[in-house]
Parts: sequence; C-alpha cells; structure tokens
Amino acid sequence: MQRTLCSSLPTTTPGDTVRLRGWVHRRRELSAVAFLVLRDRSGLAQVVVRGGTALPPEETTVEVVGTLAANAQAPGGVEVTDPEITLLTEPAATPPVELWRPELNASLPTLLDHAPVAWRHPGQRARWELAAASVRGFRSTLDSVGFTEVQTPKFVASATESGANVFEVDYFGRPAYLAQSPQFYKQQLVGVFERVYEVGPVFRAEPHDTVRHLAEYVSLDVELGFIDDHHDVLAVLRQVLAGMVAGIHQHAPEAVERAGAALPVVPDEIPVIHFRDALALVGAPEDEPDLAPEHERALGAWALAEHGSDFLAVEGYPMAKRPFYTHPSPEPRWSNSFDLLFRGLELVTGGQRLHRPSSYDAAIRARGEDPATYASYLQAFEHGMPPHGGFAIGLERWTARLTGVANIREVTLFPRDLHRLTP
Amino acid sequence: MQRTLCSSLPTTTPGDTVRLRGWVHRRRELSAVAFLVLRDRSGLAQVVVRGGTALPPEETTVEVVGTLAANAQAPGGVEVTDPEITLLTEPAATPPVELWRPELNASLPTLLDHAPVAWRHPGQRARWELAAASVRGFRSTLDSVGFTEVQTPKFVASATESGANVFEVDYFGRPAYLAQSPQFYKQQLVGVFERVYEVGPVFRAEPHDTVRHLAEYVSLDVELGFIDDHHDVLAVLRQVLAGMVAGIHQHAPEAVERAGAALPVVPDEIPVIHFRDALALVGAPEDEPDLAPEHERALGAWALAEHGSDFLAVEGYPMAKRPFYTHPSPEPRWSNSFDLLFRGLELVTGGQRLHRPSSYDAAIRARGEDPATYASYLQAFEHGMPPHGGFAIGLERWTARLTGVANIREVTLFPRDLHRLTP
Repeated sequence: MQRTLCSSLPTTTPGDTVRLRGWVHRRRELSAVAFLVLRDRSGLAQVVVRGGTALPPEETTVEVVGTLAANAQAPGGVEVTDPEITLLTEPAATPPVELWRPELNASLPTLLDHAPVAWRHPGQRARWELAAASVRGFRSTLDSVGFTEVQTPKFVASATESGANVFEVDYFGRPAYLAQSPQFYKQQLVGVFERVYEVGPVFRAEPHDTVRHLAEYVSLDVELGFIDDHHDVLAVLRQVLAGMVAGIHQHAPEAVERAGAALPVVPDEIPVIHFRDALALVGAPEDEPDLAPEHERALGAWALAEHGSDFLAVEGYPMAKRPFYTHPSPEPRWSNSFDLLFRGLELVTGGQRLHRPSSYDAAIRARGEDPATYASYLQAFEHGMPPHGGFAIGLERWTARLTGVANIREVTLFPRDLHRLTP
Repeated sequence: MQRTLCSSLPTTTPGDTVRLRGWVHRRRELSAVAFLVLRDRSGLAQVVVRGGTALPPEETTVEVVGTLAANAQAPGGVEVTDPEITLLTEPAATPPVELWRPELNASLPTLLDHAPVAWRHPGQRARWELAAASVRGFRSTLDSVGFTEVQTPKFVASATESGANVFEVDYFGRPAYLAQSPQFYKQQLVGVFERVYEVGPVFRAEPHDTVRHLAEYVSLDVELGFIDDHHDVLAVLRQVLAGMVAGIHQHAPEAVERAGAALPVVPDEIPVIHFRDALALVGAPEDEPDLAPEHERALGAWALAEHGSDFLAVEGYPMAKRPFYTHPSPEPRWSNSFDLLFRGLELVTGGQRLHRPSSYDAAIRARGEDPATYASYLQAFEHGMPPHGGFAIGLERWTARLTGVANIREVTLFPRDLHRLTP
C-alpha cells in the first residue's frame, strides 16, 4: 500500500485504509482515548488511539496504518482511527525544545545548539522553505532571460579582492584563501556567457559578533554584459526580486503564514536616490563616505512614506569607498554603483564594473598595487570584455527581512561565526 | 534601438536595420571586401565590410549597426551590410588560443592557464552549457517530487567523516576543516524536510594527480527519508538521471552537437548487479574489497552488451569498505549501498544509511572511536530519524562522460588540484 501524506487526507475518502509515515509530533493521553498527532513534510494528522496502548514519545518516527474517518473537530476535518502503529526507530529521547508548541519557546543558543531538532518546528522550517522558494524564483527568472548558471572555485590564490577578513587554508602545504565572493570569476565568465549567475557559499573572516554578519553565507550572484550603465543592472535586479517573491507565492504560499512573514510588493520601478541626496535627506554631513545603519533605516522609512516602496536603491556611492573594479560615474567623485535597501537594511550591493584593460591598470596602480598580482584576472580584460555589471544578494539577509527576525542566525540552517562551528 | 542577438537574424526581415553587440570572432580581409564574424552568447553572424576599413582584432567587443541582407552563402542565410562598427573596449590582445577554429587546438596546460579566454570557444563553452542544463534538470526533477533545496556549511569542526584528505583552515585562530561532502548535514535535514538536495562545492585534499580527481568539485547531493531500502534510492536516482538528460534536450539541445556529446538513454529500470556477482563476472577473486578501474570498464561493456544500458548499478559493496553510516544488507558482510557506473566509470555513490541511534553507537565503537566525537551529528538520530538513504553525483564526472574528454579538467570551469590554484 502506498504511503499517504498528511496533507492528502482531507481529499481521501472516509472509510479508506491509509498508511502514514512521519514523526510523533504530539501525544495526548486522556482516560478513555489518546490522540497522536503525526507530522510529515506536508503537515499534521490526528490519529485516535483507544484501548490504553502507550504511545511512543514525541519525535519517534512511526508508520500508522488505519481507517480514515470524518470528524469536524479534527484538523482538516478528518482523523485516522483503529491505527496499527509501528515504530521505525527506537523511542526518541525527549526533545531539547518543545516542537509541538505553536511558537518555539527557547533561547537563541538553545535553538542553535540543537539546530537539527529545532528546525523540525513547523514555524521554524517555514523560514527555510521561504529561502528555498526564493532561490527557485531567483533562478527561474534568470534562466528565462538568457543567463547561464556557473560554479566558480572557492579556493583562490591570493587575498586580493579586499585584503582583509579572508580565511587561509593549508593547500597542499602552501597557503590558499577562501573566496570572499565569486566577483572576479563571474566577471571573467561574462566574457564567455555574457550573462551568468551563481548561488553558493562565500566566506568572510568577520571578526565582529553582530546580528547581521556570518563567517559563511549564501550569496546570490549575478553579472551581465553589454549594458549601458548600472541602470541596466538595477532593471535586472528588480526583475529578480519580483521573481523571488513570485517564487514564494508559487512554491511556498503556505509557509508565509507559518513563518509569520510579510511579503513585499516589488514596484514596477524601484525608487532610486543619489548618495549625495540621501545624505542630505538624513541630515548627514556631505563628506560622509558611507551610510550608517541609522541612515539606512531613515531612508527605508522615507521610501515607504514617499514611494510606498519596501525597496530603495541608493546610487552613486563615492568611488573612494568602493572596490577598485567599480566603474566611475560621469560626474567626478561618484560611481556607477548602488546599494539596495530592503526595509531600511542593505540587502544588495551592485553596479557597473570597469571593462577596459587600461582602466584596470590605472585603478590598481592608484591603490599602490602591481597589476601583475592580478594577471590571471586581467587576461579576460586584455582579450576583450563588454561593459558589464552585476550584483549580489545575501540570501540570509533576505529571509531575515521577510520574517522580521532580530538575528540572521535564526534563518540560517547551521550558522558559522566567530564562536560557532557546530552543529 | 534594441539589441538583436545573432540567433534572431534569420527570422529578422531583410532590409531592417539591426544592432548587434558581441566579440570579433574572426576577420577575413580580402582585396575588395572584408568579413567580420561576430560572436555573441547566441551564436555567430557575418558582417560584410567594404571600403578598406581596418577591422578590430579578434576578441575585441564591438557594436555593429547595419542592414540585414539575405545571402544564401552566409551562415543562417543572412548577413549584415553597410555596418557602422563601434569598439566597446580597447583593441584586444592576440588570444592565446585561436578561438575561431572549429576545434580548439591547444595543449591542456595552455587551455587551463588561459581558461577565461579558452572557455569562449563555442565548442568548449558547449561543455559547460551541458553541465548547466543538467543541473537544471536535476533540480526540476527533485522539485517536482517534494524535495527541498538546502545549503549546508562548508566549515566543519572535525575531520571525522573519512579522516584523510581534508583541508584545514585557520578559523579565527583555531583549526576548522572544509566539508568533504554534505553527508552529515543532508542526513540531519532529512529529519526536518524528509527529502533534500544540495548542489555545491566539496573539498578533497586529493594527493594524487589523476585525470578524474580534483581538489574541489561540484557535488549533486540527494537524501530522502521513509524508504524501505536502497532500491527506493536507486529509483529516485534513475528519475534524476532521466531528468538531467531531459534538461539537456530541453535547455541546451544545440550544445550537444557543438560539444560533440553523446547523450545516453536512461532505461526505465537501471540494471542492478550484486557486487559478488560483479566480481565473478570480471573474474576477480571473491574476497576483493572493491572494483578496480578495469573491472568497472568490463562491467560497463557487459551492461551495454547484455542490457543495452550505459548505466549499471552495483549493489551490496562489502561493509568493510563503506563509511560507518552505511546500512548493512540482510545478508552478512554486504551493505545496502551501491555505486552507479556510467559507461564503465563510477559516477554516483549511494545507499541506505543507518538510522537507529544504537546502530550508530555500535558502528562508531566498532571503528575504535568515541561516539561523543559525533555528538552534534548524533542528536538527529536520538530524536527520531526515519529509514533513509541518498546519493551524490559528481557533476564534472557526468559532463566528462557525456563529452568523452580524457581529463576531468577539460569540463571544469576553473579546476583546482595539487598543482593548480589559478586562474
């Protein structure tokens, strides 16, 4: 007999024999009758047990074969009666967190130490379901407009992109480093495929213990060629964000409520403000080189009030604060780069990159570095690259903003930081 | 004016003005006329230049605005005349390999040293297009049968899975290791989502310099719960392989010929042979613990001759040679695990895993190890896990077999091995 998923029971005919498999989510033993709530990947089902049989402890995996019966009081209007319950493993140890409660009521360290169990909570699991559905929407949007998915190396020879915060590896007896982003590789691959994306881990030896930084996170990277300037990149970003939201609506609609998430509406055009005007708007000095978190929050509030938008692109960041491959704006001092704020927090960094070999030569020398250090990267440019640009979305930041959690670790399956390497 | 892709020219009306953007693939300057072949992500286009204008060197990125004209001799039956050619970057340096030749005629070290340029060759690029389309098919197959995509950490606290061949990282002043596979994490997540998959990098400090090993490769990992035994895992593997082939047919049909690939037909049921019978078939001693490469080749030939199949599953590998989490077979000595050979080479390893906490305790002690070392992994089992199993497909091995290349490096975008960390 085929297994039936809990979610299919309401459309199964009462009187039919069903075979369920899952976890004991909750047991309630009354004097005359006992209830076993079974959980599988699709949802919950109520099983009615008579005759004083002791039920297996919560989280034990079981098979239940029984008869489906209508019961208006039961979840979904049906329950399983006259069950034969078979244990699929040994009786489970008492869970470190009470998974059957509507809300996970435990401290963050407890949740993180017991991640493999805590993630079983339906509300917690829903957070990752939103992440997975978003990534699905990300890919299908890009697939539909001529992008190629790539996989670039995580071992790199030098810590050149930003210098700091890089992890060193013993690579067959010599030093190598873990890639802080696929930036250099996605650019080189624009020379091959024109339009590329990658979903993968990036590594930052982030020495600060904050609620929004991790030592390893999932970066959704996009890069495209033959653009006019960074506005073409912003247009693709808008399409991608809309695709991520659509991915959730399509593939995880039911997780939205379970996770307590609030999905944004992605406007047809994302409002754009120049960095200079953003500083003026929040009353910051005009020579400020970056936006502080309180500035981002104020700008987010402004975008919502003024444009009814959860998103705001801040363009034109000062060249001085951007990486060397950043394309300048026609106006001196500013760049063709942007950050995207989502509900007042930086979610995306992107922009147009340099593409002429002479521009790279000058930019690297201006940093007091030798272009020869970058020889393997620069060969792509010497052999013809188009004007191009791209962006990177931090997956965990996205899910954190959707669900409103205070700490990014609450939406990361197995977070890694200054202090945490397990589970 | 919108950009037109080369592939759209045959369906564009002759006489129309078109705007192309791409690379100078090839120039041929005759006495009265010159031809510029333009390459973009979609294909090639012929541009006719009169009047003795010097053409930009190969690989320079250009914009061409001209008039479309029918010409039965031109590729696709059309060409662009009266062009205005604008350089999008500086004239390109002479490419290290001749990209316009039908076959890339260069040594492997040259190809690898100049990967960002060599991958531009249409035949070479097609190899990755097959890989990308396969991954798309892999995901869509699993998405359609209730799997959740996960992203698991690459930093791990101990080198416990196999002990050897692990990379050590300086993790904020203490040692950490790079995950050799997502094995432990995908199992734990079966406890959450029942059915999970991951596409991501795995790291092996492989000290041997062979044509089929890399220090970093892309692993397509699958794990599912509530199985009866490893035959349920094989059934999903069959479905996934069929989905990968279908992905190529759907998303990269034209790359098959360009890459010179031979796509397999995935049989409705993959033939299965027991390890014991496989040894007998190839005339190996019956106490042989593993299959040698020549045995795999012989078995591949047998599967093709006997079953007309490019695939052969060898089940029941001796427990002694499999990792500690392997589920034994009901028959002593053998396991519920398998390798899948594709055209006589190992492509996939998989099987059923242990799921009872007492089995883990015994298996770890039998290795002379302390279960406490595995505490964070084992909590998933103590708190109820279903019978489960899974498999991992090496993406590069898959593409190598499809295209028949001699060395796995020829299908890896930027290979990493004992000697190579760049480009």
